[in-house]
Amino acid sequence: MATKRILILGGGFAGVYTARALEKSLPKNSGWEVVLVNRENYFVFQPLLPEIVSGNVGILDTVSSIRSLLRRTRLYVREVESIDLERQVVSLAPGIYPRSLQLPFDHLVLALGNVTDFRGMPGLHEHAFPFKNVADAIHLRNHVIHVLEEAAVESDLQLRRELLTFVVAGGGFSGVEVAAELNDFLRKVVKRHYPIDPREVRVVLVHSGQRVLERELVERLSEYATRVLRDSGIELLLGRRLKSATPQAAVLDNDQRIATRTLVSTVPSFPHPLIEALDIPKQRGRVEVDEFLRVKGRTNVWAVGDCALVPIAGTDQFCPPTAQHATRQAAVLAKNLCATIAQAPLVPFQFRGLGKLGALGHHRAVAELPLKIRLSGFPAWFLWRTVYWWKLPGLLRKTRVGISWFLDLFFPPDLAQLKLNLSQGVGQAHYEAGEYVFRQGDWGDALYIISQGEVEVVKEENGTSRVLATLRSGDMFGELALLHAAARSASVRCRTPVDLIVIRRSEFGMLASNVSAFRENLERLAAERLARDRQSPN
Amino acid sequence: MATKRILILGGGFAGVYTARALEKSLPKNSGWEVVLVNRENYFVFQPLLPEIVSGNVGILDTVSSIRSLLRRTRLYVREVESIDLERQVVSLAPGIYPRSLQLPFDHLVLALGNVTDFRGMPGLHEHAFPFKNVADAIHLRNHVIHVLEEAAVESDLQLRRELLTFVVAGGGFSGVEVAAELNDFLRKVVKRHYPIDPREVRVVLVHSGQRVLERELVERLSEYATRVLRDSGIELLLGRRLKSATPQAAVLDNDQRIATRTLVSTVPSFPHPLIEALDIPKQRGRVEVDEFLRVKGRTNVWAVGDCALVPIAGTDQFCPPTAQHATRQAAVLAKNLCATIAQAPLVPFQFRGLGKLGALGHHRAVAELPLKIRLSGFPAWFLWRTVYWWKLPGLLRKTRVGISWFLDLFFPPDLAQLKLNLSQGVGQAHYEAGEYVFRQGDWGDALYIISQGEVEVVKEENGTSRVLATLRSGDMFGELALLHAAARSASVRCRTPVDLIVIRRSEFGMLASNVSAFRENLERLAAERLARDRQSPN
Repeated sequence: MATKRILILGGGFAGVYTARALEKSLPKNSGWEVVLVNRENYFVFQPLLPEIVSGNVGILDTVSSIRSLLRRTRLYVREVESIDLERQVVSLAPGIYPRSLQLPFDHLVLALGNVTDFRGMPGLHEHAFPFKNVADAIHLRNHVIHVLEEAAVESDLQLRRELLTFVVAGGGFSGVEVAAELNDFLRKVVKRHYPIDPREVRVVLVHSGQRVLERELVERLSEYATRVLRDSGIELLLGRRLKSATPQAAVLDNDQRIATRTLVSTVPSFPHPLIEALDIPKQRGRVEVDEFLRVKGRTNVWAVGDCALVPIAGTDQFCPPTAQHATRQAAVLAKNLCATIAQAPLVPFQFRGLGKLGALGHHRAVAELPLKIRLSGFPAWFLWRTVYWWKLPGLLRKTRVGISWFLDLFFPPDLAQLKLNLSQGVGQAHYEAGEYVFRQGDWGDALYIISQGEVEVVKEENGTSRVLATLRSGDMFGELALLHAAARSASVRCRTPVDLIVIRRSEFGMLASNVSAFRENLERLAAERLARDRQSPN
Repeated sequence: MATKRILILGGGFAGVYTARALEKSLPKNSGWEVVLVNRENYFVFQPLLPEIVSGNVGILDTVSSIRSLLRRTRLYVREVESIDLERQVVSLAPGIYPRSLQLPFDHLVLALGNVTDFRGMPGLHEHAFPFKNVADAIHLRNHVIHVLEEAAVESDLQLRRELLTFVVAGGGFSGVEVAAELNDFLRKVVKRHYPIDPREVRVVLVHSGQRVLERELVERLSEYATRVLRDSGIELLLGRRLKSATPQAAVLDNDQRIATRTLVSTVPSFPHPLIEALDIPKQRGRVEVDEFLRVKGRTNVWAVGDCALVPIAGTDQFCPPTAQHATRQAAVLAKNLCATIAQAPLVPFQFRGLGKLGALGHHRAVAELPLKIRLSGFPAWFLWRTVYWWKLPGLLRKTRVGISWFLDLFFPPDLAQLKLNLSQGVGQAHYEAGEYVFRQGDWGDALYIISQGEVEVVKEENGTSRVLATLRSGDMFGELALLHAAARSASVRCRTPVDLIVIRRSEFGMLASNVSAFRENLERLAAERLARDRQSPN
């Protein structure tokens, strides 16, 4: 008898708990194997992510390796390249060797979650920090410390103010927890370690509603949360949305411009591109399933977790995208999948949720529990920690996080950066009209190619400024300073919103010395511009 | 009275302890300020680095933030760009804003350590993991876990063997500790979590001597260390040196080729490029100082730590590059610097070292102490942990590392990867003659430009292979698969050792769609090659 395969795509709470439940329910010699595909070999314990920023909790303690939770499941640590429901095969992207891999399936479980996607918001992809996974949290920590170190030695007050402004967009649980944790961290380390007045630090939370967490909590708790954040020194910009971002600013829907070098956006969660590509019924990007977690119109395709729109039996409501729902869905799905195989009757999903918890910093939180029990302040915070500690998988992790939390009561946060020599590579940048890409006299560290928009090259001499040229899509600038390793000989200012390709010095050197067409092109351009500069009056 | 400045370059043990000693010795209103420049805001506790690979110790616990150790020193977290001894000014590279910064000094302390530099060893820069800082350790951990995950799903036995071979070059303390820790980690996690037979795992230590640690320790201990490593399953390749590296192999000086995807090189420590550029007396790259730590021939320039060649007064010997010497040098330097300012007599450096300690994995170590006391095995290991624990700066770090070490006795190592979405960017690769860059049918994920050497394009059809073309320096290949998103239509094999520029799919897309010269060039090339392929006989 050939082994049949249940293939689970995605290793978040939904996917891992489905596999776990299947390991328990499927008899050992059932002739079925469970295979799970995930791009990481761990799953993230989301509620602890903000504590990576402050360094309260060890990085490895915010994640759990999937292999240590699933003993009988086969794990592929790969990206999924495509899903073919008709041919019943999933293809995986290459790993170390350049070959893709085909995985046929008999049952497919979609547990792909959702993704951060900044489509339709110019500049966010380039200049905003998402906050969804461990890498995001580490990058944010590094950046925040980098900005503090720079502010500590910056003498220009305007620039210093820009460096010390931190903007978080989104007043849901995620945005509130990041803003609160960041605010606590900044105020503690600045006071203790930096030659910076804590009053110079601004943490701004931008939220479209009139109160934070208004969609998640009852009015009283939402009002309480709003007040606690304000009291702890966070500036709330309510009734506003983020519109775009540039390297120097967050731009709001009323065109208000907040000069900052640190913008965190927790707002947009989009359906996974693989789900988007599938020909199955969806509502606002989430896969429609019946009360048994089966994708509508399919007999061997299931969906679970944040990517699925799961009806709660006996109500006209759908599950919110939270871990407590995902894990309960996983249990029901596994049961129904086994029942399908055994041709037994299925059971409907009817969990209504145990409550909601959100941390607000300063050892305070809000909690909305069944039986209309509502908690706020320290008791809610204590409950928050207890619940999440309890949910941590494994005794080692429980011990380590418990100890970290205990020590955190007595010791100040650590401010060592986790610099990882990240290659900047070839990047992209977005600027709004009127902003400067660089100014005359700045140090030249990159070459730019305009992919959209118009810029002016402006020369300042004897107190007057003169437009030397207007450049458009396809034009290149900034090459002079790179070829001759000098300060910028003119400023570049945007006439319209502008999208740029940025090639940094390191990459540039390699390309210029090896791609002859590239080099010749640049040298010609540089010569032309030098000639033009010389012709122009002094 | 204008403030005078002591400028310290480098924030390792040498630099930080010099600043610390100066903070204590310089009177508060002396009119002197101490400034320290370092590229990171932390200093690394080197002996704990190998434990990042196994995840025993939290990443942040292997480093200490400089600000929390130095309360009165001004810290600049920047790269040093250049040193001008005559004008007495150091210039710093730009931070977030593109401007460099000039720091004049009255006294200069060089504490720049040394750097990893693979010059003269083809392919090591591209394909070997250095092991010097936190980023190196994290990258190595990520890579090792990546390789295990790939081996777990690889069915080709030859490729699987290649993935499960780990090569460490260098049998000094650093190489021995990395090899031992890696070996312990691999054997524990493979046995527990992977569908891999532990006997498939090979850890190879390549060392030029006949025993490991033979230069560092007396014969008996060096022999003991060699035996312990061998007993714990490490293959020792003695009397051999690493010559070059490719993406698929480590090549030794006898042209032996070890097929591997993981090569760690702890061998080459070069003088810092800034030291190289200075016109001061040096021996094998280290700065010559007198017994007072003053650079020979200078009155206001000092050198300390690994970048300095420090004579031990009363002997004809020089200090080895270790932390215990660096910290003692720092104290003497600070004293002499203050004495110089106060025009008091200087004191010579005469510390002879307290002993040597090296961990060998499996709770064993070697120790060579004064009074000819020699320890090995568990007692030495216990001493090793005690000494380094004692030396850890700060109570919080002591507590956390102590607890981690305690837990590590009872729990298996964690195997979650720390995937950080590192951009690969535009990279470089080195291949030896006869190796394949890619094979017909492989998935196309990069474009290559030859910067040195010759390759053959080989087409395999109907069981025979035919050389389509020979390409040389400046030529480009691999563009077909990228332009048309398909499998490679031919293999590329190296005729000579080859250096390549690698442009990955992500970067490539951006460049190709924006740099018109680049795109036109590629399309012309692709068209020519397609035409040539069609002309050729089937």
